[in-house]
Amino acid sequence: MLTKTPHLFDDATKVSAGDSRWQGHTSDDYWAFVGPFGGCTAATILRALMDHPQRSGDPTAMTVNYCAPVAQGEFDLDVRLVKANRSSQHWCVEMTQGNGDVSTLATAVFAERRPSWSHQQATYPSAKAMAETLPFPHVAAPWVKQYDFRFVEGEPKRGGLAATAPVETFSKLWIGDRVPRKIDALSLMAMSDAFFARIFHAKRELVPFGTVSLTTYFHADAADLEAENTTHVLGISDAKIFHKSYGDQNGDLWSPNGRLLATTTQISYFKA
Amino acid sequence: MLTKTPHLFDDATKVSAGDSRWQGHTSDDYWAFVGPFGGCTAATILRALMDHPQRSGDPTAMTVNYCAPVAQGEFDLDVRLVKANRSSQHWCVEMTQGNGDVSTLATAVFAERRPSWSHQQATYPSAKAMAETLPFPHVAAPWVKQYDFRFVEGEPKRGGLAATAPVETFSKLWIGDRVPRKIDALSLMAMSDAFFARIFHAKRELVPFGTVSLTTYFHADAADLEAENTTHVLGISDAKIFHKSYGDQNGDLWSPNGRLLATTTQISYFKA
Repeated sequence: MLTKTPHLFDDATKVSAGDSRWQGHTSDDYWAFVGPFGGCTAATILRALMDHPQRSGDPTAMTVNYCAPVAQGEFDLDVRLVKANRSSQHWCVEMTQGNGDVSTLATAVFAERRPSWSHQQATYPSAKAMAETLPFPHVAAPWVKQYDFRFVEGEPKRGGLAATAPVETFSKLWIGDRVPRKIDALSLMAMSDAFFARIFHAKRELVPFGTVSLTTYFHADAADLEAENTTHVLGISDAKIFHKSYGDQNGDLWSPNGRLLATTTQISYFKA
Repeated sequence: MLTKTPHLFDDATKVSAGDSRWQGHTSDDYWAFVGPFGGCTAATILRALMDHPQRSGDPTAMTVNYCAPVAQGEFDLDVRLVKANRSSQHWCVEMTQGNGDVSTLATAVFAERRPSWSHQQATYPSAKAMAETLPFPHVAAPWVKQYDFRFVEGEPKRGGLAATAPVETFSKLWIGDRVPRKIDALSLMAMSDAFFARIFHAKRELVPFGTVSLTTYFHADAADLEAENTTHVLGISDAKIFHKSYGDQNGDLWSPNGRLLATTTQISYFKA
């Protein structure tokens, strides 16, 4: 189960089981500017929970607080089942490296998703098919190369924000793994952090940026995802405010069949 | 600082300082159906952090995971500064009661909010003034009586959801403390959980319900809130999906001057 698998993503998020202490290693394939791609870190933590012998149910909510940059190399995951109920579990995970400092602090809720009244209130965003949408040209960061981004609306612009230009923060895009891989909770967790920083869109340039806290809710369990059987999702993302060095982002990840798979929000530091 | 103050809210969220272990007591004034109002629990935890001698900066993000019902009476707060950076702090808090079981698990990010490019992308929702809006009649739960809810749109309906009726989940309402109290981070934290459950709106009836995880981002620091100098906020709230016993909610809290003070999201269990 924990052996090397052919897909880069599974290799990048690989963990070795411990009792309460698990081990992993950062992936050069998913490297960002000053550390691993945050979505890869989040997915790695989620994998440790999914693989944990005490885990029961499907991931339902996960919050990841990025406390400090993760250095290239080994890390430990301190995995703790904080509270187990009849049909839900609350977990807490701390990622540490050599000096013992916590680089990442995460909480997760797992739940057995029982049948209920079901209703999708949000409307599926319309989009032309992924195959008819142009791929986004590769950019420098290694992690971006692991994804197939195809913008339907709100492709990042460059050249800086002119005084008379409107501030644009909305994007709609297809997202898949560059090497196609069936969408599961792990890839949804990673993709929920794969929208380009809203401040890059707003300012039309790259500025110093770091996600501080990321929260993702899963609206599809393993059986739902199996039924969707897709290798890509339609994502929409927007921001509401940038103020005093912090800005927000919200996003939805939809299956091509029009099912809302996950919703996500994050708050990020920026320098601009 | 921690003595009894005249406002019910401050009394309800009172905590006694410890080193890493703080104490508090549930409030009958803010009681909900089977435990304290979750927003009051969240604000109580936030107060312990705000009052902590090591605290630096303003609350920027907080996630509260409701692991189990909180029983009436005393509780302990295990407060831990997980990581301190130059201008931000990461905290983790566990609320426990007699048997040592964790009832609430929270993480929070504090940050010194430095000047930056500032832009509010979201549009202030228009609304007639609070004074011109009718108060929502008192309902049974004690905590609801502590608030002054005035619905502009999307007042809860009753009588159940008819087969031909549309599912309505959007609400716009003024929210203030029943006894006026200046809006601060503590009351924003509480009010971010004060929207009525979206499933009640969707189904037009009360059903078994419990918030599982709540995340709130603060977009105004103490100086910003001081400048707003308001005792009420305009809140909007909506849901995107109800599926397999869990549903989501998102919300914004605005000052009457049109400043976005906080954004919030939660995932909740329901039986319907």
